[in-house]
Amino acid sequence: MKASGIVVEYNPFHNGHLHHLQQSRLTTDSEVIIAVMSGNFLQRGEPALVDKWTRTKMALSAGVDLVIELPYAFATAQASDFAKGAIFLLDALKCTSFCFGSEEGSLEAFQHTYDLLSVNKVAYNTAISTLMKKGISYPKALNEAYNIVSKDVTVPLVDLSKPNNILGYHYIEAAKTLHAHIQPETIQRVIANYHDEAKTSETIASATGIRKVLFDEDDLTKVQSFLPTTSLDALNEWQHRADSFANWELFYPLLRFIILRHTKESLAQFAEVTEGMENAIWNAATTNVTFQPFMEKIKSKRFTWTRIQRMLTHIFTEFTWKQLHDTELPTYIRPLGMNEKGQAYLQMIKKDLQLPLVSRVAASKENRLLQLDIKAANLYYLGLQSSFGQQMVGSDFRIAPIRM
Amino acid sequence: MKASGIVVEYNPFHNGHLHHLQQSRLTTDSEVIIAVMSGNFLQRGEPALVDKWTRTKMALSAGVDLVIELPYAFATAQASDFAKGAIFLLDALKCTSFCFGSEEGSLEAFQHTYDLLSVNKVAYNTAISTLMKKGISYPKALNEAYNIVSKDVTVPLVDLSKPNNILGYHYIEAAKTLHAHIQPETIQRVIANYHDEAKTSETIASATGIRKVLFDEDDLTKVQSFLPTTSLDALNEWQHRADSFANWELFYPLLRFIILRHTKESLAQFAEVTEGMENAIWNAATTNVTFQPFMEKIKSKRFTWTRIQRMLTHIFTEFTWKQLHDTELPTYIRPLGMNEKGQAYLQMIKKDLQLPLVSRVAASKENRLLQLDIKAANLYYLGLQSSFGQQMVGSDFRIAPIRM
Repeated sequence: MKASGIVVEYNPFHNGHLHHLQQSRLTTDSEVIIAVMSGNFLQRGEPALVDKWTRTKMALSAGVDLVIELPYAFATAQASDFAKGAIFLLDALKCTSFCFGSEEGSLEAFQHTYDLLSVNKVAYNTAISTLMKKGISYPKALNEAYNIVSKDVTVPLVDLSKPNNILGYHYIEAAKTLHAHIQPETIQRVIANYHDEAKTSETIASATGIRKVLFDEDDLTKVQSFLPTTSLDALNEWQHRADSFANWELFYPLLRFIILRHTKESLAQFAEVTEGMENAIWNAATTNVTFQPFMEKIKSKRFTWTRIQRMLTHIFTEFTWKQLHDTELPTYIRPLGMNEKGQAYLQMIKKDLQLPLVSRVAASKENRLLQLDIKAANLYYLGLQSSFGQQMVGSDFRIAPIRM
Repeated sequence: MKASGIVVEYNPFHNGHLHHLQQSRLTTDSEVIIAVMSGNFLQRGEPALVDKWTRTKMALSAGVDLVIELPYAFATAQASDFAKGAIFLLDALKCTSFCFGSEEGSLEAFQHTYDLLSVNKVAYNTAISTLMKKGISYPKALNEAYNIVSKDVTVPLVDLSKPNNILGYHYIEAAKTLHAHIQPETIQRVIANYHDEAKTSETIASATGIRKVLFDEDDLTKVQSFLPTTSLDALNEWQHRADSFANWELFYPLLRFIILRHTKESLAQFAEVTEGMENAIWNAATTNVTFQPFMEKIKSKRFTWTRIQRMLTHIFTEFTWKQLHDTELPTYIRPLGMNEKGQAYLQMIKKDLQLPLVSRVAASKENRLLQLDIKAANLYYLGLQSSFGQQMVGSDFRIAPIRM
């Protein structure tokens, strides 16, 4: 059985994801598709709309064969570590390939870009630091530095101002630096851009756009044309049980409490909180009763919105710089769900796995990264501030991988 | 102007407190009565029913001339440090006397008891440690050790199994060890015992009993006969603005979040958390959705309910062992409210004060103990989980001492 991997958040699973899933299977000619999926907190530094179990159900219903949790420490990390954790897991799972969606759509351009930046590593990094010292945000600095080193290049290169191209670049970089056996593939994303807020076709909209409509209108029927029926059912069931979709606005009373429970100084211990941001965060929490104006108050040219949200995520979950620095690579494989094919595949590769396979969390609860996943899940459920959320604390110990 | 001090929590101010106030004025023949009052968290390790401003209003309405905040680090400490902080402040405020209610009612017995325990200090403390090593709780060990050293004594002694006698003993001890000028007085408490849950007369009930009725029946009219009208008005106004009276049950979702955000190990950094209680607390939080069963799960013979609640208070406010050990004596005098007489008195003694007088918090915000008071107040308001609570964050900076 040949397996291919994809890296996903499915927040929520929509028709664009379905396209990516089907194309990945075709492009890589694989029988098994394995998705490495973030848990309850995401790379944009946000709580997921619905929990990891609900998102696993959506994935399996749509045809993913096996869903593996990307540990918190990678799922909420900046792009390069996010990519490293995900590709490492897919490689450990003996996938022959991984397939990512990109604005670019051609692997060749990625290869050229990787080679260019490897050869010009020092010049590139120097340019980035110089630009950042001028107060330019990290993504912008990356982009400008890239323009500098690629000035006279004639081979096709990737446009690294596009978010999925950036992620794709990091996947390829991760596969190289990990000396992984797994081979990259890319397919072109259709129509909707990642950041698009409005719907861009009759059936395809970005997850960002879908979430915006959900929060603005609180009406699932407004987004139903962009979702497989199975996703719609899962979201309906979640809304029925949990009352609300999760976002920072909902979690803000708890976040605010946590921030004000700390001193400015002690906030600086949390991962990614740097350059006096502890003061800005603490001051903004003192005076702001809701999340949006709180963020507007913190926002600065030096840091992207996403970066600031990651700081808040780490404050929320008590994830420190020390823990971040102690994190190297995933130390376990945790299936969240599988269909029969996924199960057969796991059975087949089981004896060759270099990492422990965690189906029952209790048996591995001393694992530091796994403890973080369990904690992040618990705090997410408490963040919902509903009786459902209170009941879901400790559910990582009670819920077995979903079989579908 | 002669001033006498009292040490109070007024949770809430009831007819028994009114009696104590009036008798204190008579017994000490003082023109001015100064109350040192706990802020939003109390010595039993609980959030106060209503905030410090509302309790200050009740006190002033009933005839207290000046209300001073007992800093958090003392207000939530065990009896000896609580007493030390309070008596130090009253002495610093040039009170000639302080007057406490006790079950005993005679100062002579307190003097004898103090002398006895001073002379037999070593034997007494040895007995306490020996008993505690057998797993007996601190209050019980105190009591048994006291019985041992007082076996053959013929002069009248205080019954130290009674809660107000214990506090009184610590006030006297504090005055002695601080070499304070202030002189003790005691008056006998009427009728209601501190721990009585039921009403014990037509007009006097304990604060504990009143709170129990309030929480069980959620009906202020059920307790109105035990309260001065002015207290009833203040409680009514609070209920109207804040929705709920505060208690641990209301604060539990936040407390639970805080506990589960920590690891067991990191919980042990908080003041009074000792002897593996971090494990008991963390485990109980994982499985319990409400406060009462959570506490039942933690309860042990070694620690009183009150002691455990103090651990929880310190976890809630992020008050560590280190901060506890760094706390020696109050470092400022913060008036929460006064009438004209109280104001005149403050004016009179102002130039002789050894401690800074903090009327505007912003001017002294670097003071470590004051920062704790401000933080405790903010977290208390966030604990209310109402829009009123969210708005009250930072109110220490906005609210001036109440003038009445």
